[in-house]
Amino acid sequence: MAVTIALDAMGGDHGPAVTVPGALAALRARPDLNLILIGSQDILLAALARHGAVPSERLRLQHASEVVGMDEPPAQALRGKKDSSMRVAINLVKSGVAQAVVSSGNTGAFMATARFVLKTLPGIDRPAIIKALPTIHGHVHILDLGANLDCSAEQLLQFGIMGALLVGAVEHKERPLVALLNVGVEDIKGSEAVKKADALFRASALNYHGYVEGDEIYLGKLDVIVCDGFVGNVALKTSEGLARMISQFMKEEFTRNPFAKLAALVALPVLKALRRRLDPRLYDGASLVGLNGVVVKSHGGTDAVGFEKAIHVAATAVQNRVPQIIGQRLASLHDHGPHVL
Amino acid sequence: MAVTIALDAMGGDHGPAVTVPGALAALRARPDLNLILIGSQDILLAALARHGAVPSERLRLQHASEVVGMDEPPAQALRGKKDSSMRVAINLVKSGVAQAVVSSGNTGAFMATARFVLKTLPGIDRPAIIKALPTIHGHVHILDLGANLDCSAEQLLQFGIMGALLVGAVEHKERPLVALLNVGVEDIKGSEAVKKADALFRASALNYHGYVEGDEIYLGKLDVIVCDGFVGNVALKTSEGLARMISQFMKEEFTRNPFAKLAALVALPVLKALRRRLDPRLYDGASLVGLNGVVVKSHGGTDAVGFEKAIHVAATAVQNRVPQIIGQRLASLHDHGPHVL
Repeated sequence: MAVTIALDAMGGDHGPAVTVPGALAALRARPDLNLILIGSQDILLAALARHGAVPSERLRLQHASEVVGMDEPPAQALRGKKDSSMRVAINLVKSGVAQAVVSSGNTGAFMATARFVLKTLPGIDRPAIIKALPTIHGHVHILDLGANLDCSAEQLLQFGIMGALLVGAVEHKERPLVALLNVGVEDIKGSEAVKKADALFRASALNYHGYVEGDEIYLGKLDVIVCDGFVGNVALKTSEGLARMISQFMKEEFTRNPFAKLAALVALPVLKALRRRLDPRLYDGASLVGLNGVVVKSHGGTDAVGFEKAIHVAATAVQNRVPQIIGQRLASLHDHGPHVL
Repeated sequence: MAVTIALDAMGGDHGPAVTVPGALAALRARPDLNLILIGSQDILLAALARHGAVPSERLRLQHASEVVGMDEPPAQALRGKKDSSMRVAINLVKSGVAQAVVSSGNTGAFMATARFVLKTLPGIDRPAIIKALPTIHGHVHILDLGANLDCSAEQLLQFGIMGALLVGAVEHKERPLVALLNVGVEDIKGSEAVKKADALFRASALNYHGYVEGDEIYLGKLDVIVCDGFVGNVALKTSEGLARMISQFMKEEFTRNPFAKLAALVALPVLKALRRRLDPRLYDGASLVGLNGVVVKSHGGTDAVGFEKAIHVAATAVQNRVPQIIGQRLASLHDHGPHVL
């Protein structure tokens, strides 16, 4: 099945300098993929030309006259920029021309606009941001990563259901193992919302592991970890900061003196393999789940490698019919009760 | 000024096998220090003998017949184990025999018992857990790390005040820079409690930086970072988990094949320097601030190096009169308003 994805080609810190080569790489990697680049026609034609490329049937251009600024208030972007590359890209999903949209632009504006245009699936209060993180063995999906800051127990359960359905669909897992992030694994631990959510998870048909603490995120024993968006965002950003600090310490230690520099030279292939393994670009692409359509956010400061990865995340979600599966299951959940999960 | 510290010698995963050598090392490092080991007299005498040591004026023993289990419910330990090594150690602070207590035992029981016995300082609703973390430049103190899960804006302000006073006292800093942990740095971002706390911080006399995101924890631009205990605990544990994963990846890459093993051999001094720099034991010792007395928690799985570090954290807090300073400032804050900070 061919997949068509609309790209906000002007978004992110670097705009077309990143989105255009990312799009070209994705097209080469995936023969079933069609892309629509949305943005200033002149700028995009010039960016394509720099890569020796022109528009084609698989790579169409669609003009949009405005760009949402990275620091622009979401409400202002939503109300004031009806012809932004971001908005036009989302509209293409709404009208059915594309099945997914990818942007590395302003996160708040992207979430607000996608939610306004595409609407949440029936039974979902609010969409959530879900993303894969590397672990000691494989990877884990975690949500919410910042779309919802003060969450009720019911919302946390919806996140768990959406996360399990997404991982089940894209990784073809029968019963993904779902856990609730908490500050201890004993029953008595936890905030009120988390304790209530634990009871809801236990009563559901989810394959529920129970509580996990922050250090278990990276152990690789789980498929889905659920938390509110404040906690998830802090966990994700804290991890980014710590990884950068360790990388900085490594650089400092391996350049401290002539012997260390020599050691770095000898260890270079090993250090490169290590860097590849921890490369955050390989995990670019956070999905906004719970909407009528596939919506993927790429990191604002991403490069072409990361943006291409986000396109693949979107294409995989489309091919595995993630929004349709979540919509259908939630409808039968509503009609027949929680045993249908 | 001589400092006397009561040690829960039976606590932690390893009990006297860790606490006794940790205590002996601290005594060697700090001539002004006196320690009281609390626990089973027979076991402690035997543990001392294994290190060729006997009780002395600087290292007294005090018998306690019970031990709080690492997984025992805090309420049960508080009500049922009046003669536990933990409880007796805390009592020695209450009675003025010791100025501080250090335990690597059951965190919940330690917090509950310390709070019950020592009471909070006037003007403090709840004590908070504060700890130093390494950063790219130096270190930062972060609180709360798990004593309070659902926090009001007023509590977050109290944490900020206590954190600033502690760092000011132990690091002799005039106006420590304090930030609120949030999911974005724009005004509109944040949970309700954090947004309200931001207004309180701005109205206070604290040297307030504003919001920071998780990745800024490790940048080393701040002295104190404030968050609720759920978020702080997740940030801390997530960091521990990620550091372990990176360390595991390094081990795997440096043993993958004969060339990698050779590279590891050449790079060994550099890798050792790196490991020393990231050694979590150097940051052992989390303080429970806001109580009448210095209360320091060492990591449950700590070894003698970490336990000794926690003793130093306690001794430094005593010498710099942290509880007295917090108590006095809070009293003048109450009498004269926030400009006295």
